Amino acid sequence: MQFELNIEYIEQLKQAIIDKNDQLIKEQFKELHAVDIALILDRLNTEEANYIYDYLDEEMAADVLLEMDEERREALLATFSTKEIAEQLDNMNSDDAADVINELPEDIQEEVLSQIEDIEQASDIADLMSYEEGTAGSLMAKELVTVYAQDTVSACIDGIRRQTEHIEAFYAIYVVDDNNKLIGVLPLKKLIVSHPLAKIEEIYDPDILSVKTSASSEEVAAIIQKYDLVALPVIDQLGRLVGRITIDDVMDVMREEAEKDIQLMSGITDDVDSSDSLWRLSKARIPWLLVGMCGGIIGSRIIGSYESQIQIHPEMAFFIPLIGATGGNVGVQSSAIIVQSLANNTLVTDKISQKLLKELSVGLINGLICSSLILGYNLIINETWSLAATVSIALLTVILCASFLGTFVPLTMNRFNINPALATGPFVTTLNDIIGITIYFLVGRLLYGVL
Amino acid sequence: MQFELNIEYIEQLKQAIIDKNDQLIKEQFKELHAVDIALILDRLNTEEANYIYDYLDEEMAADVLLEMDEERREALLATFSTKEIAEQLDNMNSDDAADVINELPEDIQEEVLSQIEDIEQASDIADLMSYEEGTAGSLMAKELVTVYAQDTVSACIDGIRRQTEHIEAFYAIYVVDDNNKLIGVLPLKKLIVSHPLAKIEEIYDPDILSVKTSASSEEVAAIIQKYDLVALPVIDQLGRLVGRITIDDVMDVMREEAEKDIQLMSGITDDVDSSDSLWRLSKARIPWLLVGMCGGIIGSRIIGSYESQIQIHPEMAFFIPLIGATGGNVGVQSSAIIVQSLANNTLVTDKISQKLLKELSVGLINGLICSSLILGYNLIINETWSLAATVSIALLTVILCASFLGTFVPLTMNRFNINPALATGPFVTTLNDIIGITIYFLVGRLLYGVL
Repeated sequence: MQFELNIEYIEQLKQAIIDKNDQLIKEQFKELHAVDIALILDRLNTEEANYIYDYLDEEMAADVLLEMDEERREALLATFSTKEIAEQLDNMNSDDAADVINELPEDIQEEVLSQIEDIEQASDIADLMSYEEGTAGSLMAKELVTVYAQDTVSACIDGIRRQTEHIEAFYAIYVVDDNNKLIGVLPLKKLIVSHPLAKIEEIYDPDILSVKTSASSEEVAAIIQKYDLVALPVIDQLGRLVGRITIDDVMDVMREEAEKDIQLMSGITDDVDSSDSLWRLSKARIPWLLVGMCGGIIGSRIIGSYESQIQIHPEMAFFIPLIGATGGNVGVQSSAIIVQSLANNTLVTDKISQKLLKELSVGLINGLICSSLILGYNLIINETWSLAATVSIALLTVILCASFLGTFVPLTMNRFNINPALATGPFVTTLNDIIGITIYFLVGRLLYGVL
Repeated sequence: MQFELNIEYIEQLKQAIIDKNDQLIKEQFKELHAVDIALILDRLNTEEANYIYDYLDEEMAADVLLEMDEERREALLATFSTKEIAEQLDNMNSDDAADVINELPEDIQEEVLSQIEDIEQASDIADLMSYEEGTAGSLMAKELVTVYAQDTVSACIDGIRRQTEHIEAFYAIYVVDDNNKLIGVLPLKKLIVSHPLAKIEEIYDPDILSVKTSASSEEVAAIIQKYDLVALPVIDQLGRLVGRITIDDVMDVMREEAEKDIQLMSGITDDVDSSDSLWRLSKARIPWLLVGMCGGIIGSRIIGSYESQIQIHPEMAFFIPLIGATGGNVGVQSSAIIVQSLANNTLVTDKISQKLLKELSVGLINGLICSSLILGYNLIINETWSLAATVSIALLTVILCASFLGTFVPLTMNRFNINPALATGPFVTTLNDIIGITIYFLVGRLLYGVL
């Protein structure tokens, strides 16, 4: 039932296109789901994709277009006339159509809009385009099934029959008053099992969550996830029902958020994936490499100021990587736990000071374990007491510092509305590297003087 | 409409419990959603939670129990008799009840099961408990709305009325044949708008995706996400419909997967969050710290073998952190991009050799930029040509190596079914640290001999 894409399949298809083997192509695409066809078109060049696209029926063509990779879709649409694009948009849900039109070059957007045959659809799209990106308004669709509170079940079923003519699937029936104000929801179960003459106002559920059009997409995702909703109605400033957001739109938001976090954590500044161009990939990665390099240069200056000490005690240099790496690892661990707690909202009733205390305790436990082990190692291999003590004391201090920073930095960033995931990456690692080296050589100078 | 939890609220509530201010407590909890009540109970101690819990009505109590944190739920259930637990399970969906019963101590599981009043519910739960964890069988619920293909719409509505007596909400009506084999789905829209005497077999949609009970939860999540489904039916080996999995169950799986990946990437070996015990947090973090330490010790041995060289040229030590940090950063970036592509299945038709070539090209671009900049810096601050050349050549080589490893290691892990996220953490960083130092001193020895 599920389709597996592989290289051989693509090769065969490309050959069929060259041979103009229409029979085979039609056969291949009859049974496939839009998502799978889109995956196939993503692997073909624009000309080939165009060739296949012409075989799809109207509805399928619009669905496939939506599922395609953004860049590939743009390339395909660039070969269409504005009239052809408008025809595709007519077969889409208003929210999807607005997304597609927003991707088009600005100078043709208006022309495409004006060529959409269904006037209502065109005005819905234009309306959706006016909301700021990243708000509930920009995420919602206008396709709604609504009933009036004072209607009967049978009148309501007639209404639904009319409204669903252009709607593929729906998951909620919203109940509104005379002013189109959202007052509740009618569970489908109730509609199906209630007497035809029952009044909606007697059977609907007034307990309904909604968001304003201005709510952020993160807020929308959080509500849908927290309350396990399938669809969330959107209201305007006056409480009037204007649209709905479904869980699949939110899953995309969630996935993008998670990817952004992982990229921030890994020191990648832009949303890239492995199929992007060499130049884009390089550009997204160079900034944090340069930050890390600056950290390295600062490190070199610090070590440089101990040049004469290193000449006398070259063994001090041996443990530079150990100190740096452990500080980095501890910092990343601490901040990852904080970032995750922030994302899950499990931090809600705890104070920063409590968090810091706990994190420092964990740091103390692990620091004592690590520094005892390295002390044992250094004594076994007969290093001098000075070096052994320096490494262990510095290691413990570095682990404590890194625990503190790994907790403090993301919490502070979050307070200033900066994505705390930024802290779990090259930023905290670089900071810990510099601090680690400073501590190590300070302790070394002290102990070599003393011991 | 949405409830915001804060410290003052919890303090007030604790006081109300001490004062036995029943009026206030009842007032507070009347309007709240189960999720919010669960969040509140998670913040109270077991005794307080128990006190509040008694105020909730049956249905709400079961919902709250499900939404609570696992550890807090276990603590609360430990204060219940087996009879009381059984009553709670009777008010849950079969899948949730099976999850809860699986968390109970094994010796009381059977007793609880035997005390569930609804025999059908008890047998559904027992059935679900028999599936292996992490399979579709263990994720699914038994609550289904099914209709027979040869029924009429009106007979079918009667059937739904019967079946939904115990079902809170449903998103799909499954169509089965006489042998209970799944043959399609009846869109709700069709049911509502079709003539009462129309036959189901004339209006149902035979195009339906399903999974076998043995499918993995990752597979289930991938299908639901890929095809934007709200619910997915589960069939047995003979194609008979046995359950369904809804998108909210899958969202939990997805979130857990994403968290596991981030923890692996951050060098945390167990699923912990900041509210876990000190000991658990420390234990989850020490293994990778020790791996990093071993890397540091190996690094110290490598540097140690160049002791005499460092004595003559102590400036070689200055750039150890820069080389290590840059190698680490590049490795993490490369592997993060690969891990993400693997998670999104966007790698499907590309060969490993192509990926490596591309990644090495990105490495070459960024490596040339970084090493030119550091060359400029070293010449400006009047370092010797030998050191300047050593640092730049080593840096370029290290970046290329790290790009290679950051791509190769996760791809190879994935091939052997090891979670590739493991590669984007201390593992690759440690490896790159060691390789970086080796390259740096090798180049240094060569160039100082030559220049």
